[in-house]
Amino acid sequence: MLTNVTLEEACELITGNLIPLPGQSVALAEAAGRVCYQDIYAARDLPPCSQSAVDGYAVAMGDEVCNQFQLKGNLGPGDYPDFSLAPGQAAGVVTGGPVPPGTRGVIPWEFAEVKGEYITTTKALNPGDNIKPRGEDFRRGDIVARRGNIVGPGLVGVLAACGNGKVKVFARPKVAVLGLGRGIVPYHAVPAPGETRDCNGPVLEVLARREGAEVLGVETAGHMESAGGRECLKKLLRKADVVITTGGAASGAYDQALDLIRQTGARVLFWGVRIKPGSHSGAAVLDSRLIVSLSGNPAACVVGYHLLVAPALRALQGLDPQPARFDAVCKNRWPKKGGTRRFVRGYISRNQNQWQVNFLPGQKSSMLRSLIDYNALIDLPAGHPPVEEGQRVSVIPLFTL
Amino acid sequence: MLTNVTLEEACELITGNLIPLPGQSVALAEAAGRVCYQDIYAARDLPPCSQSAVDGYAVAMGDEVCNQFQLKGNLGPGDYPDFSLAPGQAAGVVTGGPVPPGTRGVIPWEFAEVKGEYITTTKALNPGDNIKPRGEDFRRGDIVARRGNIVGPGLVGVLAACGNGKVKVFARPKVAVLGLGRGIVPYHAVPAPGETRDCNGPVLEVLARREGAEVLGVETAGHMESAGGRECLKKLLRKADVVITTGGAASGAYDQALDLIRQTGARVLFWGVRIKPGSHSGAAVLDSRLIVSLSGNPAACVVGYHLLVAPALRALQGLDPQPARFDAVCKNRWPKKGGTRRFVRGYISRNQNQWQVNFLPGQKSSMLRSLIDYNALIDLPAGHPPVEEGQRVSVIPLFTL
Repeated sequence: MLTNVTLEEACELITGNLIPLPGQSVALAEAAGRVCYQDIYAARDLPPCSQSAVDGYAVAMGDEVCNQFQLKGNLGPGDYPDFSLAPGQAAGVVTGGPVPPGTRGVIPWEFAEVKGEYITTTKALNPGDNIKPRGEDFRRGDIVARRGNIVGPGLVGVLAACGNGKVKVFARPKVAVLGLGRGIVPYHAVPAPGETRDCNGPVLEVLARREGAEVLGVETAGHMESAGGRECLKKLLRKADVVITTGGAASGAYDQALDLIRQTGARVLFWGVRIKPGSHSGAAVLDSRLIVSLSGNPAACVVGYHLLVAPALRALQGLDPQPARFDAVCKNRWPKKGGTRRFVRGYISRNQNQWQVNFLPGQKSSMLRSLIDYNALIDLPAGHPPVEEGQRVSVIPLFTL
Repeated sequence: MLTNVTLEEACELITGNLIPLPGQSVALAEAAGRVCYQDIYAARDLPPCSQSAVDGYAVAMGDEVCNQFQLKGNLGPGDYPDFSLAPGQAAGVVTGGPVPPGTRGVIPWEFAEVKGEYITTTKALNPGDNIKPRGEDFRRGDIVARRGNIVGPGLVGVLAACGNGKVKVFARPKVAVLGLGRGIVPYHAVPAPGETRDCNGPVLEVLARREGAEVLGVETAGHMESAGGRECLKKLLRKADVVITTGGAASGAYDQALDLIRQTGARVLFWGVRIKPGSHSGAAVLDSRLIVSLSGNPAACVVGYHLLVAPALRALQGLDPQPARFDAVCKNRWPKKGGTRRFVRGYISRNQNQWQVNFLPGQKSSMLRSLIDYNALIDLPAGHPPVEEGQRVSVIPLFTL
């Protein structure tokens, strides 16, 4: 068993053991934010026929300039031309409506004078003016999205315009959370003296949903004997793609996570990562199922989630598992020099054209306080000196900025 | 009726006529991403009692250094101390478990030697070491969130730790979309020759949901006579907080949006905005209901949504209506000089420490192409000269960066 691996080794072991989930067809409005399972091509020309961009008169002409036309017909909304225009002829058309074959341009009504069956233009017209040619936006067969692209509003629009009601997207990873810490009870239970409410479960539920996962359940087994915990874990592994355990992950007498995971028959990928907080993290696989064991300390649990679980959820959905990363300027200082590589919870913001970051208060791994406002992790390398205000640090943005 | 107002006037007219929605209690896991309706305070001390940060021995001592202690008891997981420690006494404790009254520090088990009923420390201990004092993270009554804050994972954790199962958040705005363009049919219908599939409805549904809205329905009235369209709009106004109409908003013979809106008894706030695309936008109010009329051209409709509807949806949920905005460096050029103020669809990205933006292809207001990849609007002021590569422009970021 690999122990105390680097973060990069841990991520590679996890994502290297994952196979992206299968595709599923979902209704257009439900597809937004999901990940395309396959390349998507325009199913037809858009617009499907040449259309007028204005209310006015479609006109046909030869090579000579012409400013008088014979009105051949009038197309209202929803009308489709059953005639074509010869040079010198015109037809009334509406915005977005089809123009008759032979149309060279459309004169907006405000620049046309009608006299009997003739119209005269009061403004020079160039060929193509106010026409949206068939296929101007997309030609049938044009690629509109690639496998791995996130379905956004524009793609939804193109698919709707083509009449596609379904999109094939990667299935959502099914996630279950199991609290293993002793004396941990569900947050909605009333804890007996000495027991503690599980705050990690609801936090992980929220975080995993943001990453596109479907959360099947949040359970605790802290009150169970080892056999009960093992059966609970086995049950979750039958339905979930990823089981996140929290707590029981240190090396004390009551720490049962590693034992329980081994008892399911899962193969341990690593145990212990050289980061702080989150050093008591581990991972295992059972068939195509992933188990990630995180600390029971809330901040360590959350850091472990972002660095180890979120990349797995992204990989399962065909996305790049690596988080974004950029430099930011410190707005305050971090007085401690570093031992182990540390991930400090920070708040990043934009000041004119540069990114700045605050080290948030309440950074003990047992404390929730830094999580109230965090939107980034600040990556301080092993053995770093104290960090001064104005210094640049590497940050991993986590939430919408 | 105000016509051809500036964008800022339009926004002020819209948000100035809105009252934030009432609050509603929702379950913790459903609250993430919603907006706090009221200030939230910690309901108890966290941790609720002084706890050990490690597995080891809680010890009590006076002012003298002491390295031998009499073992008074042993607290396993879930145990609560029914005794206190006098100087010179110790008790076995577990990570996260309560320490007995009188505890001055906890010796990790790896630095303790047990001989009979005595333990000896092999490492100097300072008062407070390895103790998480009661209320260290939060004291009962500490503010943890303010009205208008978005519920994030950390707040969910604090509320779970306090045993709160519900959060009061602003109600979601109820939105309905009504396509008024003549010859427009629902995207899942098979259009007759001359008819066009409604792509704006699904796009607006996706966009409004992103902004926290509940979308009640997407309808089209393009096939109806005026009376039918009016009844449809009235019906939607009975259940929706915001009705977005698309199409029929220009000033041609078949443009019915303004007429229909007036027929409902709504008060028109403005009609026409000095922006491109999206100049054919308008807004009206009926009691506390908002109607925003957008162009039927997809790109104009989307620009109008971001600039006029999204701010309203934010204001209804107690958020700052103003979008974020910053400068970015152009990666390509925009060759046209400007007439009206223009909002070009762009793609912003980060290059090391600066933001850059691309003008996307397919910028005609009738085209969907620029919407496939857009994540920002580029705000080009009225009368701007052509924009060169390397120039700075003001951008409104729209989606997660």
